[in-house]
Amino acid sequence: MKFHKILIANRGEIAVRIIRACRELDISTVAVYSEADKESLHVRLADEAYCIGPVSSKDSYLNVANIMSVATLTECDAIHPGYGFLAENADFAEICESCNITFIGPSADAITRMGDKSVAKLTMKEAGVPVIPGSDGIVDNLDEAIVIGREIGYPLIIKATAGGGGKGIRIAENEDELIKQITAAQQEAQKSFGNAGVYLEKYLTGMKHVEIQIIADNYGHVVHLGERDCSVQRRRQKLLEEAPCPVLSPDVRERMGEAAIRAAKSVQYSGAGTLEFLLGTDEQFYFMEMNTRIQVEHPVTEMVTGVDLIKEMIAIAEGQSLSFTQEDISINGWAIECRINAEDPEKNFMPCPGEITFYLPPGGPGVRIDSAAYQGYSIPPYYDSMIAKLIVWAPTRREAIAKMKRALSEFTVEGIQTTISFHQKLLNHPTFIEGDFDIKFLEENDI
Amino acid sequence: MKFHKILIANRGEIAVRIIRACRELDISTVAVYSEADKESLHVRLADEAYCIGPVSSKDSYLNVANIMSVATLTECDAIHPGYGFLAENADFAEICESCNITFIGPSADAITRMGDKSVAKLTMKEAGVPVIPGSDGIVDNLDEAIVIGREIGYPLIIKATAGGGGKGIRIAENEDELIKQITAAQQEAQKSFGNAGVYLEKYLTGMKHVEIQIIADNYGHVVHLGERDCSVQRRRQKLLEEAPCPVLSPDVRERMGEAAIRAAKSVQYSGAGTLEFLLGTDEQFYFMEMNTRIQVEHPVTEMVTGVDLIKEMIAIAEGQSLSFTQEDISINGWAIECRINAEDPEKNFMPCPGEITFYLPPGGPGVRIDSAAYQGYSIPPYYDSMIAKLIVWAPTRREAIAKMKRALSEFTVEGIQTTISFHQKLLNHPTFIEGDFDIKFLEENDI
Repeated sequence: MKFHKILIANRGEIAVRIIRACRELDISTVAVYSEADKESLHVRLADEAYCIGPVSSKDSYLNVANIMSVATLTECDAIHPGYGFLAENADFAEICESCNITFIGPSADAITRMGDKSVAKLTMKEAGVPVIPGSDGIVDNLDEAIVIGREIGYPLIIKATAGGGGKGIRIAENEDELIKQITAAQQEAQKSFGNAGVYLEKYLTGMKHVEIQIIADNYGHVVHLGERDCSVQRRRQKLLEEAPCPVLSPDVRERMGEAAIRAAKSVQYSGAGTLEFLLGTDEQFYFMEMNTRIQVEHPVTEMVTGVDLIKEMIAIAEGQSLSFTQEDISINGWAIECRINAEDPEKNFMPCPGEITFYLPPGGPGVRIDSAAYQGYSIPPYYDSMIAKLIVWAPTRREAIAKMKRALSEFTVEGIQTTISFHQKLLNHPTFIEGDFDIKFLEENDI
Repeated sequence: MKFHKILIANRGEIAVRIIRACRELDISTVAVYSEADKESLHVRLADEAYCIGPVSSKDSYLNVANIMSVATLTECDAIHPGYGFLAENADFAEICESCNITFIGPSADAITRMGDKSVAKLTMKEAGVPVIPGSDGIVDNLDEAIVIGREIGYPLIIKATAGGGGKGIRIAENEDELIKQITAAQQEAQKSFGNAGVYLEKYLTGMKHVEIQIIADNYGHVVHLGERDCSVQRRRQKLLEEAPCPVLSPDVRERMGEAAIRAAKSVQYSGAGTLEFLLGTDEQFYFMEMNTRIQVEHPVTEMVTGVDLIKEMIAIAEGQSLSFTQEDISINGWAIECRINAEDPEKNFMPCPGEITFYLPPGGPGVRIDSAAYQGYSIPPYYDSMIAKLIVWAPTRREAIAKMKRALSEFTVEGIQTTISFHQKLLNHPTFIEGDFDIKFLEENDI
């Protein structure tokens, strides 16, 4: 089945990214937008665009009824959810199916099984994927928690099973702290995620965040596209990503890739997905979570593999088999992505929405811009603050860093504050240049 | 020797391109500009910038005395001439050498030997490179021309030996026309190029313009980087280029590449250069001319080989050996370049200088922009009308065409007319899509 029209249930750069892929595939596009996004680039670029509600995400980009109405009335074959919003909402995937509209992503079942973090961890353990030592699933009561704490040792992490993306996490340095925090963690989880379940994990230090991109069709073929190093994080939010990972040996890369494929197969995964791992200096790695959607940082994988992940997602949802095997994939050169946010690095990264009075992105060889910004555009204060992803490719990491510094130096955004200056400092930091930084790098260094 | 500072003796997108390469190599840059180019992007991006004269090219970008003064006073190690202006001026290359400033390009001798077209043809013939049947060098008088005309047959071309790039060419359909035109051609050549020499060539039809990019160091290593198909021409000016050539067989590619390497070696070439060939439907190819400089269309080669030609030129001029051999080069995927000119396709491509009131180049995967344009910039009427090169890469030609169409559809330039709409029609033309068009394609088709 060939799709004729796709609704993009998202905004910003990822909506633009998906529209671009559709246009190249000769598929019509329907954009949806909140009242704050009338002037957005995704609205301008789509073939059709419909307002689905007021500024609040809950009433617009999460408004399933309105989105499904637009999809049905415009006779869309499929919906691409992008990332965030409805992308990992199993109910939404099911509603699409019941309306005979293809959800471009994995099955509701796979989303559910990976969405509950303690269930996901058990599933991975059963599939032979290394997991962080901890409780086998939800901790029912304090006594059980104390026993497990003594088994795995301190410090440990209390994680909400319904959390994810760095949310719903507490650290206990010793048994006293565990006793104090566990009830509070359960109450917070209930309040934030509607699910009080928490589980325990060993708190590992000196770890890198390394994730494997996988792609799977509906016929059991799963291929991994290598890894991304996303260890540059501020408050668990990724700021810079690169592919490949500067410290990964070919042997560990292969083992991680195989583990990711086993993980995907264990939930009959289909579409694009990411297995997030922690990687220690001893080359041991541990499953953290699986994101059952396209990720912000997917372009670095595209740059080193030549694979267009959005087009592949669409082809898979159309029912096509993967057009390549594992042997066809090789990692070529180096790619780095900087997330350029409308934030003031001098003021604790305070968001700086407002009008862009001058905008000139960098160009030239090896430079890619994924953005919904343009000169005269006003960034609304209601959504995330990312205004552009600047991605570069070069044959080597050293050259990619030089290229990113060059591109940042000519990226001109006036009228608002951005994180361009932060990235310039980061790229000059000796620890970053060396490449063996861990996820505490930004916390422990003043950049 | 590592260069510390390079003067860029050019303007527009190629000056910006060279500044970008220098910045990535941590080399300081000096821009020069005419009084019309104060607000140009190359002036903004360079580390230093100096006005070298009034608007007329003769008094600014061709003003050798002023350019050498700036280079000397700013203590530049080298000068990159870009294309056009002083790029193929052997005297300029010699003056640089005598001032102990490295000319980033081949030796003055190689420029001279390739600059005189009839000498170049003889050199190529001696090197075993196939040449178009014709006179062996300059035709001295009418009687000799008539004899040669009878030998090679009609139609034939009268070419000025000092011409090039499609200039200084007349066609004679029969002996009467030859008799009528030869004196006029000599007079015109004297007037235009200061050299009355003309030579004769068989006028071949149904030919493609296919050129081979070569790169050579100072130690006799020469590598070719595959071909570009530049058959889409309007009045002998290239409008769209692609790599590889859609009809070239691997066998002919190899033979053309070998011929190009022989050609380069025969003049002890060093730096980046291009051998232009005519390719017939019978797979025979003939040397046309060699361009002893970087070419406008170099990005398509960069996109399919991963080689940065400007950086290589700089490395070679620094005295480095080539960092790769022929075996390291492979052609990956497909690249297309559209030259976006400030011209009105509805009014016979009349140049349309003026202020760009809104500018938003396309982005996303596989899209590269080489441009000196920005919102608010006024294109001066004094120089060429190219405002941007839009280059795309995709795994296949079909996908590259789809990507170019997508990119063109979102490229927004307001305030002036551009050739974007022309390219959109061109990319939808069945003959273009088929790929076997020849250099008469635009002349014979209404696009």
